[in-house]
Amino acid sequence: MSGPVSPLAPKSFVDMPPVRGVRMATAAAGIKYKGRTDVLMMVFDAPATVAGVFTRSKCPSAPVDFCRDNLGGGKARAVVVNSGNANAFTGKKGRESTAMTAVAAAKAAGCSEGEVFLASTGVIGEPLDATKFSGVLDGLATSANEDFWLEAAKAIMTTDTYPKVATRTARIGDVEVRINGMAKGAGMIAPDMATMLSFVVTDADIPATTLQALLSEGVEPTFNAVTVDSDTSTSDTLLLFATGAAAADGQKPVSSPSDPALAAFRTALNNLLKDLALQVVRDGEGARKMVAITVEGAENDGAAKKIALSVANSPLVKTAVAGEDANWGRVVMAVGKSGEMADRDRLAIWFGDVRVAVDGERDPGYSEEAASAVMKEEDIAIRVEIGLGSGKATVWTCDLTKAYVEINGDYRS
Amino acid sequence: MSGPVSPLAPKSFVDMPPVRGVRMATAAAGIKYKGRTDVLMMVFDAPATVAGVFTRSKCPSAPVDFCRDNLGGGKARAVVVNSGNANAFTGKKGRESTAMTAVAAAKAAGCSEGEVFLASTGVIGEPLDATKFSGVLDGLATSANEDFWLEAAKAIMTTDTYPKVATRTARIGDVEVRINGMAKGAGMIAPDMATMLSFVVTDADIPATTLQALLSEGVEPTFNAVTVDSDTSTSDTLLLFATGAAAADGQKPVSSPSDPALAAFRTALNNLLKDLALQVVRDGEGARKMVAITVEGAENDGAAKKIALSVANSPLVKTAVAGEDANWGRVVMAVGKSGEMADRDRLAIWFGDVRVAVDGERDPGYSEEAASAVMKEEDIAIRVEIGLGSGKATVWTCDLTKAYVEINGDYRS
Repeated sequence: MSGPVSPLAPKSFVDMPPVRGVRMATAAAGIKYKGRTDVLMMVFDAPATVAGVFTRSKCPSAPVDFCRDNLGGGKARAVVVNSGNANAFTGKKGRESTAMTAVAAAKAAGCSEGEVFLASTGVIGEPLDATKFSGVLDGLATSANEDFWLEAAKAIMTTDTYPKVATRTARIGDVEVRINGMAKGAGMIAPDMATMLSFVVTDADIPATTLQALLSEGVEPTFNAVTVDSDTSTSDTLLLFATGAAAADGQKPVSSPSDPALAAFRTALNNLLKDLALQVVRDGEGARKMVAITVEGAENDGAAKKIALSVANSPLVKTAVAGEDANWGRVVMAVGKSGEMADRDRLAIWFGDVRVAVDGERDPGYSEEAASAVMKEEDIAIRVEIGLGSGKATVWTCDLTKAYVEINGDYRS
Repeated sequence: MSGPVSPLAPKSFVDMPPVRGVRMATAAAGIKYKGRTDVLMMVFDAPATVAGVFTRSKCPSAPVDFCRDNLGGGKARAVVVNSGNANAFTGKKGRESTAMTAVAAAKAAGCSEGEVFLASTGVIGEPLDATKFSGVLDGLATSANEDFWLEAAKAIMTTDTYPKVATRTARIGDVEVRINGMAKGAGMIAPDMATMLSFVVTDADIPATTLQALLSEGVEPTFNAVTVDSDTSTSDTLLLFATGAAAADGQKPVSSPSDPALAAFRTALNNLLKDLALQVVRDGEGARKMVAITVEGAENDGAAKKIALSVANSPLVKTAVAGEDANWGRVVMAVGKSGEMADRDRLAIWFGDVRVAVDGERDPGYSEEAASAVMKEEDIAIRVEIGLGSGKATVWTCDLTKAYVEINGDYRS
C-alpha cells in the first residue's frame, strides 16, 4: 500500500489451492484505506481446533486479549480481521468494539462468541468504529468461498507492498493433508512473539493441545527469528486452525505432539512458517536487501540468538548494508554490546563466503573488492564464529534505508 | 566533519579558561582525515589522580584494555588521543600500537608508561599505524599550553559537527576549584557505558579512589542516560583527572566520597557531565530534534530507565519525531515491549504539556493540533506515567532521519 513493490518481493505468487473446511470473503469497509479491501472473514464449516501465539507486549491490543480468552475453548468457527486500525490502546471502547464484532460474527457464522477469533492491524490509539464492518459480516459469511487465499491476504495488508501466502502438503499416515498460510508485516516487526498477523489453516485432524505444542515449537526458529526494526507490535497474532476434514479420508487420530505420524506434518508446518516469516522480512519497510545472520560457536543456542539479534537490530549494521559497505567492524561492535560471552581474539566473521576477520583482527587475506562484491547482492549472509561453544542460531532482517525513515515519518496522515 | 553543523548545536561556544596543572597540544598526523588535527596530547605538570569508566562491550578496543590496566596505578602524566581510527579489533597489532604510543608518550612527558592513558576513535578493524603520530609526541609535549581546550576538543571529533566543551567551578571548603571537560560523539552512542570519548580535568586535590567513586556515580544519570542509536561503542572512554593544583591555594585534603566538603564539587561535576552528554546527543548523527523521555510511576528507578530507553531506542518513535508526527501509539508500543511491568489501562502520555493519552486510551480532550505543535519544536519532552510505583528516570535521544542513514551508509569510504 506504500509506494512501489519491494524489490525483494517474490517474482510470482504461488497457486493457493483451497483447504477443505475453511471459506473466506473480504470487504472494503473504508476503515482507513480507500479503494481496497480491509476486512477479512474466515468461516469454518465445522468447528476447527485452534492454537495461537501472541505478542508478549505488556500493552496488547483488545483483539489479542479477546483471542487469549477464547483460546482455552480450543474451537473456532469464525475469524474476523481488519486492517487500518489496530484497536490497540483504545481502553473500554476497544473492548466494546471486539464485543460488538464478536456478536455480529457469531450470528453470521451461527456459532457462539467463544468460537470467534479477532485480529486488527493498523494505527494504535484511534478508536475502532466496529459498526463500519459489523454490518457486512452476514454477507461475508454467506459469500465466503474456499478458493480465496490470495485475495484474503490482500485485505490484511497495511504498509505491506505484496500479499504473503504459502502452501505445503504433508502425509499423516497414508493421508495427504494441506497447510495454507497468510501473513502481513511490514513494520513493528521484532521477535519474542508471533510477528504481526498470520493465519494458517490445515485440513488435518489434530487436537487443539497438540496443535498448540506444534505451533509454539515451530514459531521459535521462524517468526521469532525475524526482525525488521526491533519494535515489537501490540497486535502480533499467529493463529493455526485444523479443520479436521482429512479425517473423512481416513486420517487416523494423532495422540500427542510426539506422535511419529506427525513428523512430516511438523516439518511441513515449520517450513511454511519460515516461508511466511521470510516473506515478512523481504517486505520490511523500505527494505532493499535481505540479511541472514548466523552465529555459531556461542555458549549455547540462546546466547547465539541474542548475539544474532544484536547484529540484526543494530542501526549501524543495517545502514552499512543499505550503503553496500562491508563494514564488519560494526558486526564486532554488535557482538560486543550483546552482553553475551565473547572473546574478541577468537572471533571470525564472514560476509557471504568471504572471511573478513579472524582471530580478533582483519583477515590477513582480506580483500575489500571481494567483500564489497558480496554487499552488492540482494541476499547477504553474515556469519559470526564466536569460538567458545556449540550454540548456534540464524535470524533474518533487512537493511535500514532512507525509505524506512520516510515511510515512518508520517504514517498516520 | 560530516556536512553542515547540527541545527541543535550551541549558538556559541563557552569560554574555556585553563585548568591549572594540565597543558594540551594537537597535531595533524593524517591518520584518516586531511586538513585537520587528529592527535591530542594532554600533559600534567605533576602526576594527577585519575578515574575512568569504560565501555561494557565484550569486544573493547586496545586502548580501552590499556587504560584499564593503568587505572589501578591511579596516576596520570600524559594522555594521547587520536581520531580517524579506533584501534579496535586489531588483535596483536593493536596491542603493539598502544605499546609503541605509550613508550613515545612516556619519553615525551618524562614519566613511566604506567602513567600514560590512551584513547582512539574512528573506524573499527583497520590496523592503526602508530608511527604516524608517535614521532610528533615530543614536539606536542614541549609546545603544550594551558589555554587550548576548544582546539583540543576539535582534534578528537569524528562525525561530530561541532566540538563539545563545558566548564564549571565549585568550592571545596574556602577554595574555588575548576572542572573542564570535552567530549566527542556522534554515532555508536548508547548507554551502559561511558559514551564515546570524554576527558574531564579539575585542579581540585582529590585522591584517585574518591575520584573514581564520584565519576562512577555521576555517569549514571548523565552519559549512561543518553542514546543516539542504541549501538554501544567498542571504545567508550571517560577519564577524570585531578591535578591537585588547588592544594597550593589551601584546599584541604578530602577524606572520602561522602566528605561534606565535596557536596558542591559533586554537583558541579554531575552538572558538567550532563552538559557534555547532552551536547553529544544534540550532535547525534543526522539529528534535527532533541528528545527528553521521562518515565514516572514505574516499579522502581531501574524499570523506569529501561522503559525510557525502550522508547528512546525505538526506530518507530524516532522516525515519528523526525516526521513531526505526534504518533503516541508508538510510545505505547515501546512501553509494552520493554519487558518491564506496565498496566495498559493506567498509562498516561504527554508530549510537552499536552496529555495525549490517559487511562489506557486517547485523552478525551485530545487535540491533534496541540500535539502537532509540540512536535514542530526543536526540543521535545515525552513523559510517560506508568501508574504503578514511584520509579523515575529521564533519558535523552535524538530523532532518526534520512541523514543518519546517509551518514552511516558509507562511513568508511
